[in-house]
Amino acid sequence: MIVIMKVNASQAAIDRVQFEIEKLGYIPRPAPGESRTLIGVIGPKPLRGKQHLQALPEVSDVLDISTPYKLASREWQPQDTIVKVGNTSIGGNKVSVIAGPCSIESYEQTKIVGEAVKSAGGHILRGGAFKPRTSPYSFQGLGEEGLKILKQVGLEVNLPTVTEVIDTEVLEMTAEYTDMLQIGTRNMQNYTLLKEAARTGKPILLKRGMSATVKETILAAEYILNEGNEQVTLCERGIRTFVDHTRNTLDVSAIPAFQRLSHLPVIVDPSHAAGKRHKVLPLALAGVAAGAHGIMIEVHPNPEEALSDGPQQLVPADFKDLVDRTRMVAEAVGKRLD
Amino acid sequence: MIVIMKVNASQAAIDRVQFEIEKLGYIPRPAPGESRTLIGVIGPKPLRGKQHLQALPEVSDVLDISTPYKLASREWQPQDTIVKVGNTSIGGNKVSVIAGPCSIESYEQTKIVGEAVKSAGGHILRGGAFKPRTSPYSFQGLGEEGLKILKQVGLEVNLPTVTEVIDTEVLEMTAEYTDMLQIGTRNMQNYTLLKEAARTGKPILLKRGMSATVKETILAAEYILNEGNEQVTLCERGIRTFVDHTRNTLDVSAIPAFQRLSHLPVIVDPSHAAGKRHKVLPLALAGVAAGAHGIMIEVHPNPEEALSDGPQQLVPADFKDLVDRTRMVAEAVGKRLD
Amino acid sequence: MIVIMKVNASQAAIDRVQFEIEKLGYIPRPAPGESRTLIGVIGPKPLRGKQHLQALPEVSDVLDISTPYKLASREWQPQDTIVKVGNTSIGGNKVSVIAGPCSIESYEQTKIVGEAVKSAGGHILRGGAFKPRTSPYSFQGLGEEGLKILKQVGLEVNLPTVTEVIDTEVLEMTAEYTDMLQIGTRNMQNYTLLKEAARTGKPILLKRGMSATVKETILAAEYILNEGNEQVTLCERGIRTFVDHTRNTLDVSAIPAFQRLSHLPVIVDPSHAAGKRHKVLPLALAGVAAGAHGIMIEVHPNPEEALSDGPQQLVPADFKDLVDRTRMVAEAVGKRLD
Amino acid sequence: MIVIMKVNASQAAIDRVQFEIEKLGYIPRPAPGESRTLIGVIGPKPLRGKQHLQALPEVSDVLDISTPYKLASREWQPQDTIVKVGNTSIGGNKVSVIAGPCSIESYEQTKIVGEAVKSAGGHILRGGAFKPRTSPYSFQGLGEEGLKILKQVGLEVNLPTVTEVIDTEVLEMTAEYTDMLQIGTRNMQNYTLLKEAARTGKPILLKRGMSATVKETILAAEYILNEGNEQVTLCERGIRTFVDHTRNTLDVSAIPAFQRLSHLPVIVDPSHAAGKRHKVLPLALAGVAAGAHGIMIEVHPNPEEALSDGPQQLVPADFKDLVDRTRMVAEAVGKRLD
Repeated sequence: MIVIMKVNASQAAIDRVQFEIEKLGYIPRPAPGESRTLIGVIGPKPLRGKQHLQALPEVSDVLDISTPYKLASREWQPQDTIVKVGNTSIGGNKVSVIAGPCSIESYEQTKIVGEAVKSAGGHILRGGAFKPRTSPYSFQGLGEEGLKILKQVGLEVNLPTVTEVIDTEVLEMTAEYTDMLQIGTRNMQNYTLLKEAARTGKPILLKRGMSATVKETILAAEYILNEGNEQVTLCERGIRTFVDHTRNTLDVSAIPAFQRLSHLPVIVDPSHAAGKRHKVLPLALAGVAAGAHGIMIEVHPNPEEALSDGPQQLVPADFKDLVDRTRMVAEAVGKRLD
Repeated sequence: MIVIMKVNASQAAIDRVQFEIEKLGYIPRPAPGESRTLIGVIGPKPLRGKQHLQALPEVSDVLDISTPYKLASREWQPQDTIVKVGNTSIGGNKVSVIAGPCSIESYEQTKIVGEAVKSAGGHILRGGAFKPRTSPYSFQGLGEEGLKILKQVGLEVNLPTVTEVIDTEVLEMTAEYTDMLQIGTRNMQNYTLLKEAARTGKPILLKRGMSATVKETILAAEYILNEGNEQVTLCERGIRTFVDHTRNTLDVSAIPAFQRLSHLPVIVDPSHAAGKRHKVLPLALAGVAAGAHGIMIEVHPNPEEALSDGPQQLVPADFKDLVDRTRMVAEAVGKRLD
Repeated sequence: MIVIMKVNASQAAIDRVQFEIEKLGYIPRPAPGESRTLIGVIGPKPLRGKQHLQALPEVSDVLDISTPYKLASREWQPQDTIVKVGNTSIGGNKVSVIAGPCSIESYEQTKIVGEAVKSAGGHILRGGAFKPRTSPYSFQGLGEEGLKILKQVGLEVNLPTVTEVIDTEVLEMTAEYTDMLQIGTRNMQNYTLLKEAARTGKPILLKRGMSATVKETILAAEYILNEGNEQVTLCERGIRTFVDHTRNTLDVSAIPAFQRLSHLPVIVDPSHAAGKRHKVLPLALAGVAAGAHGIMIEVHPNPEEALSDGPQQLVPADFKDLVDRTRMVAEAVGKRLD
Repeated sequence: MIVIMKVNASQAAIDRVQFEIEKLGYIPRPAPGESRTLIGVIGPKPLRGKQHLQALPEVSDVLDISTPYKLASREWQPQDTIVKVGNTSIGGNKVSVIAGPCSIESYEQTKIVGEAVKSAGGHILRGGAFKPRTSPYSFQGLGEEGLKILKQVGLEVNLPTVTEVIDTEVLEMTAEYTDMLQIGTRNMQNYTLLKEAARTGKPILLKRGMSATVKETILAAEYILNEGNEQVTLCERGIRTFVDHTRNTLDVSAIPAFQRLSHLPVIVDPSHAAGKRHKVLPLALAGVAAGAHGIMIEVHPNPEEALSDGPQQLVPADFKDLVDRTRMVAEAVGKRLD
């Protein structure tokens, strides 16, 4: 439920309604607006007491919300959220470019890529230090050493950084070294990790699960927002279908779907969806044409020697070309990439 | 197999190799090129005799092709096919706009839409006269009366026309009234219809089946090409997935996949994939950004009164806006919509 | 809508209500029962006039039916349909075994299999004469020669026969030679074929489309029933999913779903779902345990030499073993296979 | 790679080969058999050195294994694993019944269900104390209080217990109270949880991810086996498909697929796949007919008042009926449920 206070209700009135909500066994979450305050009513118990709240003199209306999420919904916040990441931001009228190697393999590799990302016009440097791998025998990442390299290169090329956090044990360490935390597709419904990552206060890049619906993805974001962290960016990265010509099927229609239901920015990751280099460019352009707030691209100086996901990583020159083309499509749809 | 003749082989040499192919029990399909002729080797029997053909003096090489299609493949024809439809064409550097009502309901409705399509810059007028409907109790189309209306309006607004042909019984009639024949998603593997539609000589718009792979779709096109009709346009219209926020999931990555494997032009149908009006625009733009040679859009003067698929049809004003935005994206990716 | 007449309403009363239904622009379809008559109200127009019909004195009630199908629904006919095929039947408490080669390749091959099917306890002999193949270059079947062989072997081993009919052009010929007509998975929504096959009066084996929902499959059956042919058997044969360890995913839960919604018998085809021999047995047993009225199995004397679908065909000895095990499971769930 | 030692190789020989493996940069994992020892060769580096190992005098053969898992494979261990859980076991010729409420709601509720499970012939009592819920506002379980209730009821009705462990923070506590740990479908690729749960030494019930392939599921099990814990039971619980008549599609064919590739026992969870009560019975029978080593069923005294998943829970009387019917199908396929 959402309680809509009367216009210009006093703080005392707001406090009183919050007290009533608590008496009913729920948690009130006030959202002060320019002219009036909304109060989200949250609680593990089946929601009751709508009539009681409606009868309070300070209350204008009480809405049952049909969507199971609240804080992430457009009803709750009509204007777009802008997520701040270091010296840049994601959302609004801007197309952000997040790029870097799949795995951080060495300082040299990361430095080459970091400079390439910066000079091509990228905004955030990505790189994996802990890799969740389907096989226990695959390369699992450099760990803390990788985090240190990422941070150092980020400082040297003046780009904020994002890296995947794979469990609560390395969460604190990961949060110390990077500007934004990525929750991977396999962890989208790892609720403990969502909640604890939220509590670090860092902006979160939340990847859609491989078989998650749009609604389930927004509900995962709701776990983060419900901890008081509103800096969430959603990421469409392809879904599991019967299709065999790509690794996953990039669900471009999810971009307008997310944007209609939620105020959170949405980016696309064409690299993981495509699985192959030559499809990364068309999917990146398609994502931006459909309204994405950004793209995330894997770049490697020597993809054929990469320790993970070689076939989908771009060399720096192709990446530069991709950013230039993306900029033109961004402008064609009334956005800017600068 | 494909037999590659020596450069400037004489007609007698080509004839002789064809004769040898026939002796082996296959059908030869010569494809004369500027400097050399290729001969496709087609046959129901397991392919044998490669060594025999390779030993012929006029033969440069014999390729086993790993793909199960030949005539539709890039190996067979490296340059893009341009499909001619009345006074326009599909393919190459151009973005074509095919638009019209889902069902032809009356002359008045079709005329309003036809004029809107023409004035917005559309190239081909579409409209359904025979509707394949999931329920036997749904509106099944106006039949021949619908075909007459479509033809008349096409002539009046000076646009070639395309309509779906649903079975071999109405094929001849449908071919008489329209410039291009559409094979619908449910009929993509109706091989009898594919072959007989091919024999009319009309250009064919072949929609991908709802659960067909890219390879299966190209194989369906191969049935048409194998009848000697090379005027085939493929159409990505969305696939069946677990996703519930759209009717079907537009598989944008199929566009570069088709173009890599085949020389046939590929358009997208965002209307059927989206199922809802507000997703038609972003999906159309995404399709063109990913490299589609055209878009197919449903337009209706009063979508809420449409006899079929109302929720996904655009009003003329929104359609005009969509064409204008599509033009900008087309130019951003180096194509033109004029 | 369904009009429920009063108990023992006279024929004159029934006629009068039918006349009123026709005046409203619909088609009445009376279904006389033991004590009262139901009248299905069918029509292409949006259904109106419920109140008018409800006001007629002879009418007990008028039901809006939420399901888009009528004749195939359990509401319309609560008791199970028994489909008669030659000297046997499908449905009720019995588990039917339909078996034979994927393609009829020769009299000798078919005779060996026919005798194996008969001696193992099978009820219907199957075999393909016209094969719908994904590639135009694959073996397309023996055609009429195949139909003749199937009929002859059926007579010699005293089993009725079923074969796939692939288009309306060979429909009459196919219907002359066989006892039951199969509509294949690719043709489930080939509505012209459904209607014309229905009109032959032959029992129809309708395979679920590879990506058809349960509801869409029942609607395809409705096309047949709406032509006055009630002898329809549904067949679950596997659906398209992301899964890669089988060709298609046998949707066992569709069996109780069909049976809850419809009175038509349902069999399973584990051969096509499995794609591989060693999965045919467990899937056949699973289907019968879940309530299927029968199984359809591919049998070949030398699967490795089969002209189509070799890897999924059983040799006669393994087929005999499968029937014996299926019989035990049938009895464990209160049915019989004899 | 797997190094196969010569028959009756001495411990010194085995040690020497292990030393060579380590020199190559890999980890040796010896598996002593009755007559000869196999040594798994594990390592993050691309595998090299096969020829070197093959040349050692004590080595009989070195196998490249095409499957990316080793310890979970049939090649590694041909005979079925039997998983011990308290006073019972899962695997082999036996069909195990695991049952209990979705969520533990109170001692009374759990006691009623525990007695029903015991008297119907169930073997293991299940119940959720920590519930991973799609929405942060849904009931999240009783936590430790729930674990205590489950343990107490298990002791009172003399059944071992299993409960889901949702994160590493509650792992130790959960392991203290229960006999078997369940890893849920959303956590199948939560590798940190897999590894730490493995280290408790408790038997693990690993549910297949909603969109995981059979191979990915076995790889998740490999993470557990690689920690030295071989007591893993796999669970097929339905996959995400386009199908809308059930919550998930029970992939019955996964049962023989798992059993062919791996030695680990496989059970089915028809309750979560079905989502609705009336489909639980046919899916349970189908699973057992296809070869499952057990079933997991949700039972609740008053499903309509359940705090989670009410529509799919059975009342005790229906559960008793289900066990009786399952027993008959188990016997029909040569197994026993006792």
